[in-house]
Amino acid sequence: MTTHHTAPTQFVEAAGVNFAYRRFGNPEGVPLVMNMHFTGTMDHWDPLVTDGLAKGREVILFNNAGISTTSGEVPTTIEGMAANAVAFVKALGLSKVDVLGFSLGGLVAQEMALAAPDLVRKLILVGTGPRSGEAMETLTPEALAVFGGTYEHPDDLWLGVFFTPTDRSQAAGREFLKRFRLRTEGRDHEVSEKVAPAQIEALGKWGAPRENPHAYLKSINQPTLVVNGGNDVIIYTVNSFILQQNLPNAQLILYPDSSHGSQYQYPELFVSDVSTFLDKNHF
Amino acid sequence: MTTHHTAPTQFVEAAGVNFAYRRFGNPEGVPLVMNMHFTGTMDHWDPLVTDGLAKGREVILFNNAGISTTSGEVPTTIEGMAANAVAFVKALGLSKVDVLGFSLGGLVAQEMALAAPDLVRKLILVGTGPRSGEAMETLTPEALAVFGGTYEHPDDLWLGVFFTPTDRSQAAGREFLKRFRLRTEGRDHEVSEKVAPAQIEALGKWGAPRENPHAYLKSINQPTLVVNGGNDVIIYTVNSFILQQNLPNAQLILYPDSSHGSQYQYPELFVSDVSTFLDKNHF
Repeated sequence: MTTHHTAPTQFVEAAGVNFAYRRFGNPEGVPLVMNMHFTGTMDHWDPLVTDGLAKGREVILFNNAGISTTSGEVPTTIEGMAANAVAFVKALGLSKVDVLGFSLGGLVAQEMALAAPDLVRKLILVGTGPRSGEAMETLTPEALAVFGGTYEHPDDLWLGVFFTPTDRSQAAGREFLKRFRLRTEGRDHEVSEKVAPAQIEALGKWGAPRENPHAYLKSINQPTLVVNGGNDVIIYTVNSFILQQNLPNAQLILYPDSSHGSQYQYPELFVSDVSTFLDKNHF
Repeated sequence: MTTHHTAPTQFVEAAGVNFAYRRFGNPEGVPLVMNMHFTGTMDHWDPLVTDGLAKGREVILFNNAGISTTSGEVPTTIEGMAANAVAFVKALGLSKVDVLGFSLGGLVAQEMALAAPDLVRKLILVGTGPRSGEAMETLTPEALAVFGGTYEHPDDLWLGVFFTPTDRSQAAGREFLKRFRLRTEGRDHEVSEKVAPAQIEALGKWGAPRENPHAYLKSINQPTLVVNGGNDVIIYTVNSFILQQNLPNAQLILYPDSSHGSQYQYPELFVSDVSTFLDKNHF
């Protein structure tokens, strides 16, 4: 069985796009499709998280259209990204999957559930928020400062994005930075300079104010697990609370002293919580 | 080994009060002391929850001063109730316990951690809120309606207190009502008519507006698990969010489609979440 570090990058054609993906883990059960964050590639996932989840199911990582090794253009709407993701999943011949989305990927995951409700069994929304969420039309002041900063080592950017300033969170962050460089063979190349502007445009449309912004959440009936850090400065934590309050069938978990990357700060706890949610049908 | 249904009621003297308690479960590890809600006795706990938690530790139920089989008067402050609870725990000869509090009991649990920080290892706050929490100075309109209602069977009151109006929540509620009547020998008698006024007075003082109402939470450094239903109408759910946001080291879990008694709606999930929190040291 291959792992996060050894799974080869494969390709599948759908919607005119050549999708790069990796697939590994326990072939029993419902596969889990993971949607990545702003400017991220398959190599930005934490192997402790992906391999941990892969013990109980197949984990499918992929680059959406226009990202790194996948062909095509990044759509300027979340709905467009979701349409591509749904086409990708169907091209794999899958008729039922669980869907996890992190940050921008969490917006895509919501739109996947709306666009293809029969395809999605359960939903996991990590470090993300609803349409017209608080401070989601533009990057938050904290995000602008972090993304605009200069760093001794380029990876250090992620310490400010994903972790709080406390000693224990930063220490967990440095462990994460080691882990996400452990795959040495067949890594994705970084995304082109065209990716960030398109994704920011899509985020802006999603986050723009509108009437009854959260009404759409009543149409997402899948059992949903909403997870975030208690102090997320990239997509404010209150947005996770709003998701739980408006989704008909959602559990919320907020972890202590953690920011946007809480699942990388508490990888074992996160894997335990997500596995319980996926394996049991408590709701 | 005795269980929720077979553990005898025992007595211990402390602070001039003769405390009734029951103690059962795995003698290894740190005992868990459970603080009951408004007008409740030891018999109001869910045996699926108490016996589930007792697999990994001793569970200690007790009636605080003036409640049912325990002598004395109900204090008109939460701090007074906490002082009695601390005296009770020390009278058992225990120097380190985990403390769970539900609703009113969650206020007592917070004050126990403040009054005796070395006595309390970890804290579990269920269906509760902070000092000066939202709508915590008086009963909420929903609580007034439920407690003022008339019921075919007296136990039906709890369907409105603990569960949402949905079919699945009410069905879970009816199962709970069966379970909490299963202990037949040595049940507590109902509380006297003096209990509710004293507890309401204490709740009013706790909930009253004050300056910097949540600053005290920074002094509760114990690892804390905050749990509630996503739609608690007795102590509004947002109060659990406020607790998590202000406690230095707290995880929040909100369960879907559930009200004040979410732990009785999802007893197995609750036992699993609490056991993970108590057994592991993820934070």
